[in-house]
Amino acid sequence: MSDHVETSEQKPSDGVVKAPGLKGVVALESELSFIDGEKGELIYRGYDIRDLAEHTSFEEVVHLMWEGELPTQSQLDALHRKLQAARDVPSEVIDFLRQVPDDTHPMAVLRTAVSALAHFDEETEDTSRAANQRKAIRLLARMPVCIAAFARLRAGKEPVAPLEDGSTAHNFLYMLNGEEPGEAAEETFDVCLVLHADHGLNASTFTGRVIGSTLSDMYSAITGAIGALKGPLHGGANVEVMKMLKAIDDSDKDPVQYVKDHLAAGERIMGFGHRVYQTMDPRAAILQGMVEALSEERDARHWYEYQMQILETMQTEKHIDPNVDFFSASVYYMLGIDIDLFTTIFALSRTTGWTAHLLEQWADNALIRPRAEYVGPRGKTVTPIAER
Amino acid sequence: MSDHVETSEQKPSDGVVKAPGLKGVVALESELSFIDGEKGELIYRGYDIRDLAEHTSFEEVVHLMWEGELPTQSQLDALHRKLQAARDVPSEVIDFLRQVPDDTHPMAVLRTAVSALAHFDEETEDTSRAANQRKAIRLLARMPVCIAAFARLRAGKEPVAPLEDGSTAHNFLYMLNGEEPGEAAEETFDVCLVLHADHGLNASTFTGRVIGSTLSDMYSAITGAIGALKGPLHGGANVEVMKMLKAIDDSDKDPVQYVKDHLAAGERIMGFGHRVYQTMDPRAAILQGMVEALSEERDARHWYEYQMQILETMQTEKHIDPNVDFFSASVYYMLGIDIDLFTTIFALSRTTGWTAHLLEQWADNALIRPRAEYVGPRGKTVTPIAER
Repeated sequence: MSDHVETSEQKPSDGVVKAPGLKGVVALESELSFIDGEKGELIYRGYDIRDLAEHTSFEEVVHLMWEGELPTQSQLDALHRKLQAARDVPSEVIDFLRQVPDDTHPMAVLRTAVSALAHFDEETEDTSRAANQRKAIRLLARMPVCIAAFARLRAGKEPVAPLEDGSTAHNFLYMLNGEEPGEAAEETFDVCLVLHADHGLNASTFTGRVIGSTLSDMYSAITGAIGALKGPLHGGANVEVMKMLKAIDDSDKDPVQYVKDHLAAGERIMGFGHRVYQTMDPRAAILQGMVEALSEERDARHWYEYQMQILETMQTEKHIDPNVDFFSASVYYMLGIDIDLFTTIFALSRTTGWTAHLLEQWADNALIRPRAEYVGPRGKTVTPIAER
Repeated sequence: MSDHVETSEQKPSDGVVKAPGLKGVVALESELSFIDGEKGELIYRGYDIRDLAEHTSFEEVVHLMWEGELPTQSQLDALHRKLQAARDVPSEVIDFLRQVPDDTHPMAVLRTAVSALAHFDEETEDTSRAANQRKAIRLLARMPVCIAAFARLRAGKEPVAPLEDGSTAHNFLYMLNGEEPGEAAEETFDVCLVLHADHGLNASTFTGRVIGSTLSDMYSAITGAIGALKGPLHGGANVEVMKMLKAIDDSDKDPVQYVKDHLAAGERIMGFGHRVYQTMDPRAAILQGMVEALSEERDARHWYEYQMQILETMQTEKHIDPNVDFFSASVYYMLGIDIDLFTTIFALSRTTGWTAHLLEQWADNALIRPRAEYVGPRGKTVTPIAER
């Protein structure tokens, strides 16, 4: 009968679990992805990430995450058609992007754009599963358009409309650069999208599920997730990796010495270590091969060499492996993407996982909220302001 | 050394706590508010809500929540001046509100407006405590301006600029209606703002703290919190209460019979019950007196009478007490506020608590994230698409 769930903490009593930051607490069950930190394995709905990266496209993974099975060719064709039809971002949203100052954080722009897209979607407040599936398609189709439009507008160029066909990867690179990407670039970028599509109950996915658990709408949940991913403790690491590689390149400093100097000064080397993986992140291993190939192809072998020197130094000095951000940084950079857009690419890929988690949350919803323990004062009484 | 905290679930192992929805788990300590559900008490930083509602203004409570102490007169004057100076919403944001369809959910509009305000705040990415305190003032000052502007624009009227002085309550009612509110209306509305300023680790406050814990910015966190509060399981209950009262009024149905019929049909009566309070929500008790006084003053005593009949029927039939939403609904309605704006008022008041919780979170940050238990398939291998 209780319709009001804005609950809060009661007096701590026996049986209450205290878990600062919720570390080690299992909040929910999920069928979407699994990480084996000891073995260095990442699984999406039963499939190993290495198998998916090698043998499937991003859109196949999207279908897998939403529907539970890899698509047949006709199902895949239908998804491509739906994505294509949904790439028509309302002009009001593009017009607003023209007003945004050029130096605005791209993740903040994406957050506002997604929030604003809701106003021009007639199904925003329709919470049926079918409507939510259609909204997931629109979000996945329109986020790349908004990112590319802002990137061009701030460079003084007009946005480029999406193509009549082609994949998410193909369209995004086309809209960003104004020319069709080469096959190698498209394939590389597509694999990056596959690798970032889901990763368990990370902070942004958790944010989306908490918002969704109030039975708020999908746009509210994804807007919140983007805000969480924007945080430097979450999605911003590959930006920092590239800044480091550029700093090494600009300074002509030896990468090994750079790492040793920074470690000696007690500073972080970005792109290493992971709370879960005790061995190499399988996504990093896949990306490493791509960096090597791309650096050969683009005649930019120095990036790969810097990274291998940094990697070997870190393994020797700190016994720590690179994570997914370490190699995605140089991949995106060699594809010609502005450094500060890297996290938005993470977001557009992760929209797959975010929306899949929301569909899973709403299939059997329960409000997600822990309690706080009150440790403030008690028993105070208001003194009239004149006597304070 | 780990800079990458996009962690996720490991294999469930001994010692892992399973807590679906995180019910009963204490995620953090807070000095901000405390609810004693047995006694029916709500405390902000040591002060009973009844004492605060009777003896302090909303701005005094804002200072209390941010600074830990009630303000002196000169501190209060300074806060009023800062709020006044910060009510200048950038024209780009108001212009965007002109583009939003009239039938858009006001909480969605507020979510976009807050997200967009970030782009025109030079301190958005400055994460120092001083900058965050200034952003909290700007958010509290500008949210009422955006809400009132959208409410007028959708009614075909021009937005009204804020006054040169006056309280948050005074300015909001003035900007909404285009005329200065009477003293009784302002006082009543001010008490409503005091009553909703904080309520422990509810779902929207928790959302804000999760986003903040990635070290994302204040606008990202408040945007996410608005999205959570929008959910019908969280902030939308008083809207539903007023719809019920209107339905009773329109039908000329006896309120007692209305309740009995709905209960017999297994339907909810909105505005009753609370997960924490086992007796009457102290905020509901305060609002009940305000409904009675306001219904006399506005010659609209029927609303109070309907509510008392509903209340008595629910207590007799279900042994359940009204919550804060039950009486705030009719208060806002009698103040002439559109029903669908009720949750935005909740949001503007709760921005006090949201921002106070963020300042508390960032004073000693730890990432907030639980784990999921993977219950999906394993060991699948990709079949080529032609063979699926």
